[in-house]
Amino acid sequence: MKKKINIAIAGASGLTGTELVKLLLGHPYAQLEHISSRTYKGQEIGAVYPGIESRLAFTERIGPSQLKQTDVLFLCLPPHDSMHYLKEVLAGYGGMVIDVGSDFRIRDPEEYQKWYGAKHLLPEILDRFVYGLPEINSQRIKGAKYIANPGCYPTSVLLGVYPLLDSGLVDIDSLMVDSKSGVSGAGRKCKDPYLFIHLNENFYAYSPEGHRHIGEMEQEIESIYKKRVVVSFTPHLLPLSRGIFSTIYVKAKNIDAGLQALYEKYYGQCFFVNYSRAVPQIRDVAGTNHCLICARHDRRAGVLKVFVAIDNLVKGAAGQAVQNMNIALGFAEQEGLKLQGIHT
Amino acid sequence: MKKKINIAIAGASGLTGTELVKLLLGHPYAQLEHISSRTYKGQEIGAVYPGIESRLAFTERIGPSQLKQTDVLFLCLPPHDSMHYLKEVLAGYGGMVIDVGSDFRIRDPEEYQKWYGAKHLLPEILDRFVYGLPEINSQRIKGAKYIANPGCYPTSVLLGVYPLLDSGLVDIDSLMVDSKSGVSGAGRKCKDPYLFIHLNENFYAYSPEGHRHIGEMEQEIESIYKKRVVVSFTPHLLPLSRGIFSTIYVKAKNIDAGLQALYEKYYGQCFFVNYSRAVPQIRDVAGTNHCLICARHDRRAGVLKVFVAIDNLVKGAAGQAVQNMNIALGFAEQEGLKLQGIHT
Amino acid sequence: MKKKINIAIAGASGLTGTELVKLLLGHPYAQLEHISSRTYKGQEIGAVYPGIESRLAFTERIGPSQLKQTDVLFLCLPPHDSMHYLKEVLAGYGGMVIDVGSDFRIRDPEEYQKWYGAKHLLPEILDRFVYGLPEINSQRIKGAKYIANPGCYPTSVLLGVYPLLDSGLVDIDSLMVDSKSGVSGAGRKCKDPYLFIHLNENFYAYSPEGHRHIGEMEQEIESIYKKRVVVSFTPHLLPLSRGIFSTIYVKAKNIDAGLQALYEKYYGQCFFVNYSRAVPQIRDVAGTNHCLICARHDRRAGVLKVFVAIDNLVKGAAGQAVQNMNIALGFAEQEGLKLQGIHT
Amino acid sequence: MKKKINIAIAGASGLTGTELVKLLLGHPYAQLEHISSRTYKGQEIGAVYPGIESRLAFTERIGPSQLKQTDVLFLCLPPHDSMHYLKEVLAGYGGMVIDVGSDFRIRDPEEYQKWYGAKHLLPEILDRFVYGLPEINSQRIKGAKYIANPGCYPTSVLLGVYPLLDSGLVDIDSLMVDSKSGVSGAGRKCKDPYLFIHLNENFYAYSPEGHRHIGEMEQEIESIYKKRVVVSFTPHLLPLSRGIFSTIYVKAKNIDAGLQALYEKYYGQCFFVNYSRAVPQIRDVAGTNHCLICARHDRRAGVLKVFVAIDNLVKGAAGQAVQNMNIALGFAEQEGLKLQGIHT
Repeated sequence: MKKKINIAIAGASGLTGTELVKLLLGHPYAQLEHISSRTYKGQEIGAVYPGIESRLAFTERIGPSQLKQTDVLFLCLPPHDSMHYLKEVLAGYGGMVIDVGSDFRIRDPEEYQKWYGAKHLLPEILDRFVYGLPEINSQRIKGAKYIANPGCYPTSVLLGVYPLLDSGLVDIDSLMVDSKSGVSGAGRKCKDPYLFIHLNENFYAYSPEGHRHIGEMEQEIESIYKKRVVVSFTPHLLPLSRGIFSTIYVKAKNIDAGLQALYEKYYGQCFFVNYSRAVPQIRDVAGTNHCLICARHDRRAGVLKVFVAIDNLVKGAAGQAVQNMNIALGFAEQEGLKLQGIHT
Repeated sequence: MKKKINIAIAGASGLTGTELVKLLLGHPYAQLEHISSRTYKGQEIGAVYPGIESRLAFTERIGPSQLKQTDVLFLCLPPHDSMHYLKEVLAGYGGMVIDVGSDFRIRDPEEYQKWYGAKHLLPEILDRFVYGLPEINSQRIKGAKYIANPGCYPTSVLLGVYPLLDSGLVDIDSLMVDSKSGVSGAGRKCKDPYLFIHLNENFYAYSPEGHRHIGEMEQEIESIYKKRVVVSFTPHLLPLSRGIFSTIYVKAKNIDAGLQALYEKYYGQCFFVNYSRAVPQIRDVAGTNHCLICARHDRRAGVLKVFVAIDNLVKGAAGQAVQNMNIALGFAEQEGLKLQGIHT
Repeated sequence: MKKKINIAIAGASGLTGTELVKLLLGHPYAQLEHISSRTYKGQEIGAVYPGIESRLAFTERIGPSQLKQTDVLFLCLPPHDSMHYLKEVLAGYGGMVIDVGSDFRIRDPEEYQKWYGAKHLLPEILDRFVYGLPEINSQRIKGAKYIANPGCYPTSVLLGVYPLLDSGLVDIDSLMVDSKSGVSGAGRKCKDPYLFIHLNENFYAYSPEGHRHIGEMEQEIESIYKKRVVVSFTPHLLPLSRGIFSTIYVKAKNIDAGLQALYEKYYGQCFFVNYSRAVPQIRDVAGTNHCLICARHDRRAGVLKVFVAIDNLVKGAAGQAVQNMNIALGFAEQEGLKLQGIHT
Repeated sequence: MKKKINIAIAGASGLTGTELVKLLLGHPYAQLEHISSRTYKGQEIGAVYPGIESRLAFTERIGPSQLKQTDVLFLCLPPHDSMHYLKEVLAGYGGMVIDVGSDFRIRDPEEYQKWYGAKHLLPEILDRFVYGLPEINSQRIKGAKYIANPGCYPTSVLLGVYPLLDSGLVDIDSLMVDSKSGVSGAGRKCKDPYLFIHLNENFYAYSPEGHRHIGEMEQEIESIYKKRVVVSFTPHLLPLSRGIFSTIYVKAKNIDAGLQALYEKYYGQCFFVNYSRAVPQIRDVAGTNHCLICARHDRRAGVLKVFVAIDNLVKGAAGQAVQNMNIALGFAEQEGLKLQGIHT
C-alpha cells in the first residue's frame, strides 16, 4: 500500500471545505491531519456537522508547525483570504498547494484586480499556478506543485465548449451562456436573499452585467483557442441545494452530424466527463464528480445548444480538487471519487 | 351596476381551468354558470378542490342548452380538444369564445399541422381569432368575438421583445430565449417525470430541438415586425409550482441608454406590464397578473439581456384570459384581476 | 355603501404585516391609511414588495396625528414591542386596537412574565382585551374595542379541541399536540437556521421542553372548560413557506360514532371552520382563512386523533385579525376574506 | 484480503434496490453479480440511472442458475412479491436471504394476514427469519441465514423506545408515535398524490386509523418487553426526498435525570445509533446509516418526548440490510457503510 499523504485544509467549515473533508476521509491514500475554522475552532467537525463521520477538531489556523508535516494544503477560503494566508505561510512551506478558492485562477494581476476588486498580494507566483481542469490540462497538472482549482461555473462552461473551439463547427465569438446554480453556490452566507422564505418557490438571474467567473472563462478559452473570445454569461439561482446546469448557445456554422463523436474524441478516455445522448439533469450528477454533456443542433435557428450538468460542490469544487491532487501526485484519477449519486 | 355576464368553462378541472374558476368567482361582473370536467362530473368543485370556495358542480360537457344561456365560453382543454369541441357546438352558439388552449393560436393551418402534428378541423375560422395579448393587440381585442389566449412562454417572450422590434437597438435576428417554467406548466399529468421524487432537487432543459410555442412566437413577431424572425427557444423545468422566468438574449447594435424609457414608452400606460429597475424574481409576480421586465446591456459582449417574470397560470393563462374578456366586453382591464401576490 | 373605516398598521413590513396589508387592500369597507416600518420608512410598499399592488408609503411610526384619524389600529410587532408602543400612544387614541402580536394574549401578568420573560408594561389593561378566536368567542368580540389576535399554533389547537372539551368522549387531561409549521411562522428573521441551505430537505422539532404558545392554549382551554388542563405541545419546522398542520392526540373514553356530528354541532354555522371527512392537507387551506378539521378514532389504541390544517399567515394571523375586525364592527364575517386558495 | 461474497438483488430498480446497489458497489467484500428488474431488463443500471457508477445489466429474474453462484440474496420487492418469489426458488437455493421487503417481518401468519391482507404463502419458514434490527438483535443476526430487514418507521420507533422498555421511567402503555417521512418512503409509484404539483408546499397525515408497520412495532416490543403494548402510530408525508423524523410521546413516571446515560447504556457501543444532546434534524443523518436520538422530559405535562431521525433509504432500508449482512457474515458492522452525509 502506498504511503499516506498528509493533508491540511484551511477553511474547512464552509460548504466546499466540508465537502472536501468528506471526500478526503474516504480517500485511500489521504490522511487528513489539520483542518481550520475560525468559527468552530476547538470543536470536533463531527460535532458541528453530525453528517460527517470524524472526530478531527478544527484549529483556528494552520500554522508553521502543522505545515511542516503537511504534503498537500487545500485552501477553501473566501475571496482574498487565500492570498493573504499564503503570503504569510508560503516562505516556510514546501508542499503542494491546491487553492479551491478564487485568488489564483486569474494569471494576470491586472485582470485579477478588475474582476475581484483588489490588488493581488502575490503577483509574482500567479504564473506558477496550473489551472486545474484535468480533462483539459492534465499534462500540466501532473507533478504540479501549485494548482488553482476552477470555479464552479467555469468548470461547466469550459468542459461544454472545449471540443467546439477548434472544431470549425461553430462561430465561437457568439458564445452565450445561461447558467443555473443551486443555493450551495452561495455558500452559507447569512443574508436575506438566501433565506428559505425568500428562495423557496423563487428563481431569478443575478449579476446581469458581469460575474467574476467570466474573466476565468475567457482566460482559459484564450489559452486553448489562442484568440480572445468574449463570453456573455448570465448566472441564475435555483431553489435547490446542489447542482449547476449550464445551457450554452453558439451560432452553428457547418454542423452536419457527429456531435457525439466530436465530444467523445475529446472525452472518450475521461472517466468523469461523459457525453449523454439525452439532455442531462441535475439529479443525474448530484453527489458525483461527473460532468454530463449533451449537444443539440437547432437547425431552424442555426444554433448549437450545449447542455452541461455538474454538482457544483463536487466536480465544481471539492471533487475536482481531489481529482487534481490525484493527478498531480500520480494516483489514479478516481481515488476517493468513486461516488454514487444521491438520486436514482 | 352592470348586468352580469354568464360564463361557461369547458375543461374546468385542470390547473388552468381551476385558476380561471377562482378568478371568475371574484369578478364583479361575471356569473360562472357552467363548468365541465369528464373526470369529476357531478361533483362540486369545492369538494374536489377544498381551496376553491364554490359549490358549483361539474357537468360532463357544456351542451347546447347550456350554451344558449352563455355569453362567454372559455375553453381550457388539452391540445386538439378545443377544435373538436368547437366543431360540434359552434353552429348553435352565438356568444364569445376565449380559447385558453392552443388550437386557435396559429393562424396558418399548415403551420398548425407542423407544430401540433394534426390537421386543423376548423381552418375556416382561424382567421377570426384575435391573438389575445392585450398589451400589444388591445385594439383588435376590443369587441372581438373569438380570442386565442397566448401560450405561457410566448406571453413572456413577446412582452419582452415587443419594444425592441422596431427600436433599431438590437439585431433581432439573433434572438435566443432561455425560459424556465414551474411545474404547473405541465398541468397535472400523471407521468414519471412529474413525480415529486423526480423533480425535487432537479432541473433540466427539454424539447431542445423545438417546442410548439416557437411557431406562435414567430408568427406574432412577424405580425408586428413585418419580417420573419427565427427564434431559438429552449424551455427548462424548475422545481417549483408556479412561475416562468425568461432570459432573452439579443445582439446589441446601438444601445446608448434609455432602455427603461423605451420599455415605458410601450408599457407606461399598461397596468399589468411593468418595467423593473432590478432583475425581477418569480416571487415578485406569483399569484398576480403582472409581467415584470428588466433589460440590461452587457457591453463587454455586445448583448442585450431581457429578463421577464410572469405567473404562468395567471398572466400566462387564466389571468390573461380574464383580461381579454374584460377588454373585449368593455370592462376595465383590471376587473377581477386586482390580485395581491402570494409572496412578500 | 357603508362608510369606510380608517386603518393603521404598526409593523407592516413583516410577513404578518404584509399579509394583513394585502387583505385590507381588498376589503370593501377598509381604507388603509397608515403603515409603519422602521426598515423601509419612506418607501412605497409596492416598491419594496412588488407582489403588493399599492403605492402607500411606510412611515417610521404611527404617531398621534395619524392615530387621530384612525378607527382601527392593527399591531404586527415583535414580542414586547406592542406593549411598549401602546404604552406610549394609548392615552391619546380612542379607536379599536387589534394586536396581531403576542403581548396581550395572556391575561395574567405573572403568566405573561413566565412565558415571555418580561414584565408586562400595561398589566392594567390586559383584562380589557378579548381573545379573538371568533368561532369560540364571537359574542365577546362583537363590539369589542381591544382584541388580542390568537397565535398561529393556538388557533389550530383550540379549534381542534374545542368541541371535545365538554363532550365526555375523551380524557382531556392526556392532551398531546404535535404541530408542524411552515417557515413563515418564524417570520423573516435572518439567522442561520432559516437559510435555504439549512432548511431545504430538512425537518426537526424545536422548543421540546416548552413553547410560548402553551400558556395561551392552556389559558383558553381553562376559560372554556373551567378546569386547568396541561397541554404537552411540540412544534416542528416544515420545509415549505406557509401552513400549519396540527395532530392532536387524546385518550378516547366513550366514542361510539358521531365525530362529524359533534364537530358540526359546534362549527356547522361557521363559514371558516369546516369538518372534513378526509384528512385535510396544507394545500387545501393555503391562501385561505379556512381551518379544516378531521377527527379519527384509533380504536386499537383507544386514542382520538384530530387533524387540523390552517394557513398560519391567514387564519393563524392576518386573516383572523380581519375576521375579528369584521365581527367587532358588525360587518359580515367574510368581508375581505373571500379568498381562493393558492393550490388546486 | 477476504474472499468476496457473491450477491444478487431481486427488485433492484426501485428506490430501495438502487440504494442497495450503490452501497454494495462500495462494499470491500461484496461482489454484486445479479440484479433483476422487470421494467428495465437488459439495460445497464448506469444507463437507466446515470447517478450509479456501474455497467451491470438488469436481468428479468434471478433464476436457479444465478442463485447457484449466489451467497447472499437480497429481496427488494413490493409487498407479497417476496414470498411468491421465494416460494418458487427457495428449494434450490442454499445461501443467505435478506428480505428488505415486508413479507417476512411478521412471524405470526394470522397477524400477517391481518396487516397485509393476504394469506402467507410460506408460513412454515416465518420462524426462521431473524428480525434484523442490529442494535437490538445482533446476537441472533450473527450467523443467521434468513433475515427480515425492518420497516423504515419501525426502525425509528423501536430504536427510540428500546432503552425505555425496562427502564421503569415511563408508562409504556401510553405510547404515541407521530412520524414524518420523506417522499421516497412511497417509492417511485406513479400516482396523483405523489406528483410534484401535489406534494410541493404540502403536508398531511395518512393511514390515520392504522398503518401496516404497527403490527411489526408491537410484535418487536412484545418480544423484548414480554408484554403486549398497543402503539398509536400516525405517519405523515413530508415534502422532501429522504429522511424520517419520529416524535415519540410516552407518559413519564419517575424521570429524575440520566436520560442520556440510559440511552448510552444501550447504544454506547453502537456505531450507528447515537444519542444527541440537541434535537436531531433530518439533515444530520441524510445519506448515512446513522440513527440520532434525543429524549426530553416535558415536566409540566409529565411526558417524555423522544426524537429520532434516520435516513429512511439507508438505516431504514438498504443500509440496515448491509449492516445485517455484515453481522451475519462476521464482517465489521461498518463495512460498506462508512458514508458521509449529504448535507453539512
